[in-house]
Amino acid sequence: MYNETKTPMMKSEITRTPFPNSEKIYLDGVLYPIKVAMRKVKLTDTVEVFNGERTFKKNGDVIIYDTSGPFTDPDIPINLEQGLPRLRETWIKERGDAELLTDITSEYGRTRRTDKSLDAFRFAHIALPYRAKAGKQVSQMYYAKQGMITPEMEYVSIRENQNNVELGIESHITPEFVRKEIAEGRAVLPANINHPEAEPMIIGRNFLVKINTNIGNSATSSGIEEEVEKAVWSCRWGGDTLMDLSTGANIHETREWIVRNCPVPVGTVPIYQALEKVDGKVEELSWEIYKDTLIEQCEQGVDYFTIHAGIRLHNVHLANKRLTGIVSRGGSILSKWCLVHNKESFLYEHFDDICEILAQYDVAISLGDGLRPGSIHDANDEAQFAELDTLGELVQRAWNHNVQAFIEGPGHVPMHKIKENMDRQISACHDAPFYTLGPLTTDIAPGYDHITSAIGAAQIAWLGTAMLCYVTPKEHLGLPNKEDVRVGVITYKIAAHAADLAKGHPGAQVRDNALSKARYEFRWKDQFNLSLDPERALEYFKEGSHEEGEYCTMCGPNFCAMRLSRDLRQCVK
Amino acid sequence: MYNETKTPMMKSEITRTPFPNSEKIYLDGVLYPIKVAMRKVKLTDTVEVFNGERTFKKNGDVIIYDTSGPFTDPDIPINLEQGLPRLRETWIKERGDAELLTDITSEYGRTRRTDKSLDAFRFAHIALPYRAKAGKQVSQMYYAKQGMITPEMEYVSIRENQNNVELGIESHITPEFVRKEIAEGRAVLPANINHPEAEPMIIGRNFLVKINTNIGNSATSSGIEEEVEKAVWSCRWGGDTLMDLSTGANIHETREWIVRNCPVPVGTVPIYQALEKVDGKVEELSWEIYKDTLIEQCEQGVDYFTIHAGIRLHNVHLANKRLTGIVSRGGSILSKWCLVHNKESFLYEHFDDICEILAQYDVAISLGDGLRPGSIHDANDEAQFAELDTLGELVQRAWNHNVQAFIEGPGHVPMHKIKENMDRQISACHDAPFYTLGPLTTDIAPGYDHITSAIGAAQIAWLGTAMLCYVTPKEHLGLPNKEDVRVGVITYKIAAHAADLAKGHPGAQVRDNALSKARYEFRWKDQFNLSLDPERALEYFKEGSHEEGEYCTMCGPNFCAMRLSRDLRQCVK
Repeated sequence: MYNETKTPMMKSEITRTPFPNSEKIYLDGVLYPIKVAMRKVKLTDTVEVFNGERTFKKNGDVIIYDTSGPFTDPDIPINLEQGLPRLRETWIKERGDAELLTDITSEYGRTRRTDKSLDAFRFAHIALPYRAKAGKQVSQMYYAKQGMITPEMEYVSIRENQNNVELGIESHITPEFVRKEIAEGRAVLPANINHPEAEPMIIGRNFLVKINTNIGNSATSSGIEEEVEKAVWSCRWGGDTLMDLSTGANIHETREWIVRNCPVPVGTVPIYQALEKVDGKVEELSWEIYKDTLIEQCEQGVDYFTIHAGIRLHNVHLANKRLTGIVSRGGSILSKWCLVHNKESFLYEHFDDICEILAQYDVAISLGDGLRPGSIHDANDEAQFAELDTLGELVQRAWNHNVQAFIEGPGHVPMHKIKENMDRQISACHDAPFYTLGPLTTDIAPGYDHITSAIGAAQIAWLGTAMLCYVTPKEHLGLPNKEDVRVGVITYKIAAHAADLAKGHPGAQVRDNALSKARYEFRWKDQFNLSLDPERALEYFKEGSHEEGEYCTMCGPNFCAMRLSRDLRQCVK
Repeated sequence: MYNETKTPMMKSEITRTPFPNSEKIYLDGVLYPIKVAMRKVKLTDTVEVFNGERTFKKNGDVIIYDTSGPFTDPDIPINLEQGLPRLRETWIKERGDAELLTDITSEYGRTRRTDKSLDAFRFAHIALPYRAKAGKQVSQMYYAKQGMITPEMEYVSIRENQNNVELGIESHITPEFVRKEIAEGRAVLPANINHPEAEPMIIGRNFLVKINTNIGNSATSSGIEEEVEKAVWSCRWGGDTLMDLSTGANIHETREWIVRNCPVPVGTVPIYQALEKVDGKVEELSWEIYKDTLIEQCEQGVDYFTIHAGIRLHNVHLANKRLTGIVSRGGSILSKWCLVHNKESFLYEHFDDICEILAQYDVAISLGDGLRPGSIHDANDEAQFAELDTLGELVQRAWNHNVQAFIEGPGHVPMHKIKENMDRQISACHDAPFYTLGPLTTDIAPGYDHITSAIGAAQIAWLGTAMLCYVTPKEHLGLPNKEDVRVGVITYKIAAHAADLAKGHPGAQVRDNALSKARYEFRWKDQFNLSLDPERALEYFKEGSHEEGEYCTMCGPNFCAMRLSRDLRQCVK
């Protein structure tokens, strides 16, 4: 059923087949000679029978935001060992403010490169990294503040509008609007100059709601192959960004494979790798180790880092009042470090140094909520909000360095406390984008936490959250497999889209309308092809094992309301 | 893994095993000698290690609302061919206002009883029905208006409180409160005197949010056995009421099996069976056929009927403006009837006659929303709200006959239009309970509509909907199988519970807190046993195939935040 791309190293099956009746198209830029990748879903005609005569009416194509990258374009050859085409490289070069280094800067990175034992699974074609020239600035936020519209900004303005122009739907999302939102910190366009493979996208509450997917092995499971496969897979289903949360062996090598083959921005939590470097001994973590890790990952092409700099020595004790303490991995590591050393964390102390490094590559900061609540009981407590105030201070410091930034949010929050969370984030963090995990609206459904959290996610996104971190059915129980990733992504696409509709995002309802029209007209294939998961819909439909006709097994032929309703219209004509 | 109950006719597997570490308990009434069935989850001790010494702390049992009926009590023998114990029969008899008839009243019912060809699958032990004595009233609403607290009312007041009394949690839900809510129409206690097997439950916005599950075969699939099995199965997972929406052959016989073995109230849509009686020819439907169907089902023990009496001749055309017309089966049938005959439907014309019949058995009315929107495009339109106004008129007419009633609601509604729906229902329908299908918050995810709708369901329940009609992954695609029923029920238990938390229902958070405490203390089994689906949680956990220890494969041993956080507390002590 699928095309497969296998390489000697990568024996995994990478699914490349375009979605049924879909075609990759490229919309042209106006300001720049860019080609914006979108998915066009072609529909069949509406057939009307009146007085025995059949008439056919065209249904316009529906153009869909597409995160799957070159993998679903049959005209682009894919070789996982080479990595994806470097889409943005000429744009970066033409700006003339970045230089190609003669060697990688990170000491650790150089050690790994020369370690013979890693040859067998090292990505073979590591390119030299770019970095801002001395005295130059390369971040999208810097450009935006200068009044400059970059190709990346035009790209996202076209991408966000799908086929609004063609359909005559008015949209506030112009290239200039994109620029202004980035300049004022309300939106982030993650675009490490060392990840030119990524297609530009934007995170901000005045844009389509985005979703992040987490992958990554832990010490107890999963290898490189499987993670690359999951990365491509999560993009296929609609993941807008990808966090590699690996904590096991060979994090460095796994990341290289993922970044080189990932068409969406990649995020990481550098403290995880730093901790591996000190064999899991939290107290041995230091600024020097962390700094080298940041540089290592900046030069590999990670687009944003979760940094738990909001953990303050004087706030750590607030979590003691909780039912479930600290449930953020990064938060618990940093809290322990603060307590053991009885001082402020090196992340907080060196925050300006961090920003200086990140600015040289245009890596964005995702300010981690190390004290996010891990249960309904702990939601919206003093610990959480104290940290949020610190994040508000830090985001302004990041902006002073022209580093793009957003804020991570909970967690577990009952519905009636979601709005307070959102409102406080907007005011405490000066309109910086919010990026939330769920939130889970109850604790009682392990195995179904994609659902407990989608309920909260849809609401908080409607209220203003810019990006949702997906939750899979395995949350709290284990690492997600491919099927879990698919279910998690689709669930979060639903939450995000429900929010886009509620927010009245320009053109968001076009797809709903087209699908519902197809449903009403019994154009089953069109209905499925327009859905978030055409394969699953078709599979369920086929379980009823009937012919494609004007009914399904749910109601049978005599009780199909839509059929009766259509007959009725014919009567009335 | 399961106990199985098989009978010659019923070869299906009926799952009877109590949930792990759970026990059926019976709480005593104070006003009446009643025994309220609940589920007690027994927890293990918390083990603390400090300075090498282990101390053990007891964790109190958690008492959970239990819809599974006698099936999960190993002390109650189950014989599907006999039906469940007739719990309420003595209560009904003792009131002395109902008489046992000497024959069933429905002509159709008598025909079916004597039809030899049905012997093979007819329920063998059909009891004679009860009916109100001439001049007497038997509805819970009548009793409530008289200031009388019935055993049914005391039952639900105990049931709703779980272990609030023991835990010292204050609750507004007293027997008198239950009585008042029923008297004033804000709550419905469905309790047909011919379904004494059902355990009393209540539907109203000042009580726990309830969920309904739909089962039933269509002409193209599924037999009696399978439907009985699904009925018991849906109660096991938490269905509060059950609608039998069968439209295929042998509706009458299927229903008898279901009602006799169903521990929760059963609802139907009588127009479906009436239509079968006229071979699917809508124009041939008549008051006489419908009336006989009502009586037939009243005497079988159906607890509530969906009646689409809100379809008015002058409103039918409003659906013509829609993208997806009429998507309610009942609505489309009645609309067609009105148009063909060019007159008001017999449901509307005979509404008072209907109420008189239903009052004799205490069958409640679920006023159907025949013009509910079937797509985001059609939400909150003129057609929907015009019908809602009619339903508001009808609910008062039902109350005049002491017939309990609630109002059905949409459907497909984007999040920003949900509140308007709820607010208008409350005002137009004079506080009668709202019973909604979802609503689905986007149209674009067939195959995942349990999720698109759970997002809407949680919100509308928080805003005041009393009962949610579940949606399974097969919605729009086919009839649900057992696994779909399970997923649909759990998904809707999540939505309902999230709403209970948001509404601050007394004691609702006890289970969340107990589960989260177990999670934090790595009492995995306790965590799973307290969850909505212990089997699924355990299954996912085991996929990680590790020992039960202080971590899972999600983070591995070194990166478990909860573990680090607990260690931290030990440090600080």
